Amino acid sequence: MTLLLALDLLGVFVFGLSGGLRAVEQRFDVFGVVVLALVTGLGGGLARDVLVGDVPPAALRDERYLVAAVLAGVVVFLGARLVERLTPAVRLFDAAGLGLFVVAGTAKALDAGLGALPAVVIGCLAGIGGGVLRDVLAGVVPIVLRREVYAVPALLGATVVVVADGLELSGPVVSVTAAALVFALRMIGVWRDWHAPVAPRWRRPPGPA
Amino acid sequence: MTLLLALDLLGVFVFGLSGGLRAVEQRFDVFGVVVLALVTGLGGGLARDVLVGDVPPAALRDERYLVAAVLAGVVVFLGARLVERLTPAVRLFDAAGLGLFVVAGTAKALDAGLGALPAVVIGCLAGIGGGVLRDVLAGVVPIVLRREVYAVPALLGATVVVVADGLELSGPVVSVTAAALVFALRMIGVWRDWHAPVAPRWRRPPGPA
Amino acid sequence: MTLLLALDLLGVFVFGLSGGLRAVEQRFDVFGVVVLALVTGLGGGLARDVLVGDVPPAALRDERYLVAAVLAGVVVFLGARLVERLTPAVRLFDAAGLGLFVVAGTAKALDAGLGALPAVVIGCLAGIGGGVLRDVLAGVVPIVLRREVYAVPALLGATVVVVADGLELSGPVVSVTAAALVFALRMIGVWRDWHAPVAPRWRRPPGPA
Repeated sequence: MTLLLALDLLGVFVFGLSGGLRAVEQRFDVFGVVVLALVTGLGGGLARDVLVGDVPPAALRDERYLVAAVLAGVVVFLGARLVERLTPAVRLFDAAGLGLFVVAGTAKALDAGLGALPAVVIGCLAGIGGGVLRDVLAGVVPIVLRREVYAVPALLGATVVVVADGLELSGPVVSVTAAALVFALRMIGVWRDWHAPVAPRWRRPPGPA
Repeated sequence: MTLLLALDLLGVFVFGLSGGLRAVEQRFDVFGVVVLALVTGLGGGLARDVLVGDVPPAALRDERYLVAAVLAGVVVFLGARLVERLTPAVRLFDAAGLGLFVVAGTAKALDAGLGALPAVVIGCLAGIGGGVLRDVLAGVVPIVLRREVYAVPALLGATVVVVADGLELSGPVVSVTAAALVFALRMIGVWRDWHAPVAPRWRRPPGPA
Repeated sequence: MTLLLALDLLGVFVFGLSGGLRAVEQRFDVFGVVVLALVTGLGGGLARDVLVGDVPPAALRDERYLVAAVLAGVVVFLGARLVERLTPAVRLFDAAGLGLFVVAGTAKALDAGLGALPAVVIGCLAGIGGGVLRDVLAGVVPIVLRREVYAVPALLGATVVVVADGLELSGPVVSVTAAALVFALRMIGVWRDWHAPVAPRWRRPPGPA
């Protein structure tokens, strides 16, 4: 099992946990929990693979991806009573999945021959896509658009991978460092309640455009 | 016209009807009705074809798919007064489309060389994808995530196709049987008001994560 | 720089502006503004390229697309105080992006060998897709489904391109004329408050299906 595969599978599992927890929060049934775990765990990676032209996507060629996502949904469903007090865990798993997916996605885009800027975008999409789908399906405004520091860690992590690649540095140390950076920045942002700036307040309340 | 094509076209039409009816319900205009018929009728199949790498998708290579979906939208729009009392028909058409798409999607994934588990997922996505898009665009929580027995018939139907394929059984009898099974299970679930289990109730009302 | 590329880049920028303005309206933070500019500016083109099988999509092979979309987001964010009274500008930029993307998308689908009807659908998807994603992410019912004349200009513009192609007419004059037609029809529709017909009112208020 290569490092990229291991990171990917772990990312699927932890993102799947965050999807399953959101579904339990919203009182979806057992299948809603598994579907949301699948969508959250696999959504970013599927978008990444479709856009870099690697189809059928890795998640459909290797059954371990599906197993990891379904397992996450089942774990959350069975352990829902136990995770009652663990609502903050949605954010923790989300941050871990973010780090793992951003790093793996950026590396994959560079491997596919994309330039630096597109590789950063693909990395961020891989990291953010599953969570956006999770929130849209659950009827919640996506975390990444809210007034929270969510995109910054992803951008920085992807940039670290791209810069390291430019310096011909790669391998486990770079990947783990970049993923840990994303995770740490995101969790510090949550902990210190960092907010990104919003445009100046409008005088009239905004109506539908 | 092969059986797979005929099933696909019929599925597009009946899913298109369900999309059009949802749009009429939500008071969308005539173009909203046609767009929602197109999205609902073609969404699952487009996702299926993009993921198995069959692009341009069948629905864009053969104009009959588009004709079937647009026709469904027009029929619903013109017949809206007539279907006033037929709201339950959304569920009926939805169940028929589910059966047809799950069977055709699973068969196509197997033909593309995917394994058993990915083929089941592609089959379920083909069956569920259009309806999820329909509900998200209409601002409704997707049926599949609600506390209804929706995913179970899809899972069982896809499994029947995969198992039959493993036994080297295929052809019209298997396809029609599997699609009828999905339809029947879904409609019995609606009729008997079956509900899938939900995780144990939380003590605190869930706030935004 | 070919005409198709120039139209595409301009379309990305103006759609990006409309996305950024929607995000400012909804009080998203600076990253939400840039993300919504990216999604709105690139969403339709990415869907177009994935469906015609041109991957990695143009927007990822040529970094100018990403620069155009990010720039639009930054411009809107920095100029938000200035655009306070420019809420109608969302519609203006949206109409311009619609015209540019419908024309470029239809032409690209014809180049890829698709038939007339699929080319019209791809053109409309390219024109409408980014705005639909923008509205879904912002939690608003997509403009195209509301009771406004939005789809008609797109349909007519795409049809002009297809018919001109059938007559072996193409080039800048056709493209600019068709894009201007879409823009003009859309803006006249907004100005005169044209509405598309809705199906006859139901007696009972519609409940969830």
